[in-house]
Amino acid sequence: MLEAFKGHVKKSFPELLSERFLLACSGGLDSVVLAHCCTTMDMEFALAHCNFRLRGEESDGDERFVANLAKSLNKYLFITHFDTIGYVNKNKVSVQMAARELRYTWFAEIMKQQGIDTLVTAHQADDNLETFFINLSRGTGIDGLKGIPPKTDTVSRPLLAFSRAEILEYAKASRLEWREDSSNRETYYLRNKIRHEIAPILNELHPAFQDNFDRTQAYLGDTALVLEAYNKKLRSELFQSENGVVRIEITDLQQLHPLKPHMHLLLKDFGFTAWNDIEGLLTATSGKEVRSKTHRLVKDRKQLLLEKLGYLDTRTYHIHENQREMTHPFRLKIECSDELGETAVNTLYVDKETLKYPLTVRKWQKGDYFHPLGMKGRKKLSKYFKDEKVDVISKDKQWLLCSDNQIVWVVGKRADERFKVRKDTRKIVKFELI
Amino acid sequence: MLEAFKGHVKKSFPELLSERFLLACSGGLDSVVLAHCCTTMDMEFALAHCNFRLRGEESDGDERFVANLAKSLNKYLFITHFDTIGYVNKNKVSVQMAARELRYTWFAEIMKQQGIDTLVTAHQADDNLETFFINLSRGTGIDGLKGIPPKTDTVSRPLLAFSRAEILEYAKASRLEWREDSSNRETYYLRNKIRHEIAPILNELHPAFQDNFDRTQAYLGDTALVLEAYNKKLRSELFQSENGVVRIEITDLQQLHPLKPHMHLLLKDFGFTAWNDIEGLLTATSGKEVRSKTHRLVKDRKQLLLEKLGYLDTRTYHIHENQREMTHPFRLKIECSDELGETAVNTLYVDKETLKYPLTVRKWQKGDYFHPLGMKGRKKLSKYFKDEKVDVISKDKQWLLCSDNQIVWVVGKRADERFKVRKDTRKIVKFELI
Repeated sequence: MLEAFKGHVKKSFPELLSERFLLACSGGLDSVVLAHCCTTMDMEFALAHCNFRLRGEESDGDERFVANLAKSLNKYLFITHFDTIGYVNKNKVSVQMAARELRYTWFAEIMKQQGIDTLVTAHQADDNLETFFINLSRGTGIDGLKGIPPKTDTVSRPLLAFSRAEILEYAKASRLEWREDSSNRETYYLRNKIRHEIAPILNELHPAFQDNFDRTQAYLGDTALVLEAYNKKLRSELFQSENGVVRIEITDLQQLHPLKPHMHLLLKDFGFTAWNDIEGLLTATSGKEVRSKTHRLVKDRKQLLLEKLGYLDTRTYHIHENQREMTHPFRLKIECSDELGETAVNTLYVDKETLKYPLTVRKWQKGDYFHPLGMKGRKKLSKYFKDEKVDVISKDKQWLLCSDNQIVWVVGKRADERFKVRKDTRKIVKFELI
Repeated sequence: MLEAFKGHVKKSFPELLSERFLLACSGGLDSVVLAHCCTTMDMEFALAHCNFRLRGEESDGDERFVANLAKSLNKYLFITHFDTIGYVNKNKVSVQMAARELRYTWFAEIMKQQGIDTLVTAHQADDNLETFFINLSRGTGIDGLKGIPPKTDTVSRPLLAFSRAEILEYAKASRLEWREDSSNRETYYLRNKIRHEIAPILNELHPAFQDNFDRTQAYLGDTALVLEAYNKKLRSELFQSENGVVRIEITDLQQLHPLKPHMHLLLKDFGFTAWNDIEGLLTATSGKEVRSKTHRLVKDRKQLLLEKLGYLDTRTYHIHENQREMTHPFRLKIECSDELGETAVNTLYVDKETLKYPLTVRKWQKGDYFHPLGMKGRKKLSKYFKDEKVDVISKDKQWLLCSDNQIVWVVGKRADERFKVRKDTRKIVKFELI
């Protein structure tokens, strides 16, 4: 296998012969063989090992094994420890996804730090075939069938041209040692079934099955890239981004046929999965929303608004009589004054005697009303928002300054008639947004 | 199975209960069971049977069988005979493709003639699974994996929800008779292997494999529709169609990443397969072309020209001295006259005494030159075409009127100085394009 590997690297990965790279090494068969082959070819690389702390002493044993391997190969080694389960609980992702995200984020950091452009991973040919059938048995789409690319901008996989059998044979002939991952046993059974039972039948159906399969995966990979180009084009045409909120005209979406798969294409990168609910949003009443783990999509009149989920502050804050400044949830300067100063949208002057302390700062509630400055009578806040065309996301972010739970100021937007400075006002309070 | 079929039709194909439809019937197990089920449900349909004449007496036996079936079910029957092998030889397609094209064209004719909107075919669930693996073993793309849709605008497949085992059981229990197609034996072995060897392993990998597989195929089908929408959008942006020739700016193509899969998407419907050659066209010299069975794609300076292949007339035609009209390859009126009439691009006046009869009408040849009217000296025709920016497709369509093989007229474009009417001209011939 070594000769074939040398030829393959020279032909398809020549840059690995002249540039330093990072080699991801779990200590398992594939990555140990890869590290040995690369060393034999005098390639310049450092090893990177992640201890995910998922298998206790076994994980630590892997780490010690890779540390010894690095010494024996005379290579630099980067090691990190992850609280994988903590990450799983915090981000509500699978263990597999957590390990993946943690690993690739860390690899990217090391590469940036060390000025390294390429990560080399030890995926081999059987991975693609096995993953294809595991995904197929579970139900999947083009992304689950297309296979791992041998090379992307930052990751190279020179072992992808070799089968597990070839790699194992090389390891045995070279008397290499490696670590067996006990958690692989679970998938080991599945992968074995595919390799030893399904693949031979497909080879019988067509003698060039493996080549045809590789071609099929390459073709599906191309198709996925074309879809991604379409996705990018559609987003640039349909998504209007402003202040972290993306606005999408519903009439634009409705021109896409078929609609649901197009919505899926446009929104899958934001973690959405409830496609029926999302389709329902198009005809739902304003304010309805669908959430993914990371984003929310809100119906707002003739648009959908897409926003990254942040912490939405719904607490109530208090302002006491002698308080001269508020820093949370926004900065407000409070001054007592004898006369009116300049009027500005960031500034409110009120008659102090109309206020009941402590004042409160809160978000809007159903049933809220106020007396808009300059108008006779009261107006529902929801009606005010509607007339001012305030979208549902902005509504949720709008703070209200209240006295005895009556709205004094739709902060930064509109004052209330009841609290305004009059001719007979004796003490004025000035609120100024910083 | 019958009860399940009834429920399925009521739920998913209710229109079949109220509208007349055409049922494609080969006489095989699936279509015979389908015809029986539909009759039991009192559905109104006519049978359509194609005799492809591929299996001699066996084909005729199938035809007689379906004729008897129609009588026993008390249904109208449409029958046709195809010269399938003749079609194969003429159109250079596979037997399978020929049968498919012939069949669907004929079905469409019958439906139009009879005012029928829906064709019902007897595809069943195993077809999708088996076709998936046969295509996979041979190498394929998303179109080979996505499966047959249960319903399109014109075709419904109510049996697609049932397995061959269910259909066979029903046929046996109902003591139905059907025809076995000896040519199916070839694929019978493959299909059997898939059904009895691959499917059980996948069921072992995931107990809900069949449902997951159906979901995967539906999802791939959606993805294929999204790709088709992208294709349509790109074509409307990049293809400029004029006089049956589509012009594509090469700089526009080059902005599509990745380029080759995009070219594949844009051009696959025109029968092209030589994708490397097509990619090469982008940087080739003007005039290079790639042909499919139906179209050619020609590099022309900064554009690619796409044209349906037609009959390119390269013959030479003659015009005799007393001839007053030519009808082929284009219409030309020829008059003798004593004086010049109005000048127009469709009209040429020449000095009759400069002509040597018979005149010839032919296409351009390498080395052709002429003396463009109003210019001193001669000019290569290829240079003239270049200066006039005549594209390569138009060049091949350009007729020349010649005398003694010298160009008299680049027809409809430019006259020749040597044949022009002079002060001392005594007899004028007028050529007029009709």
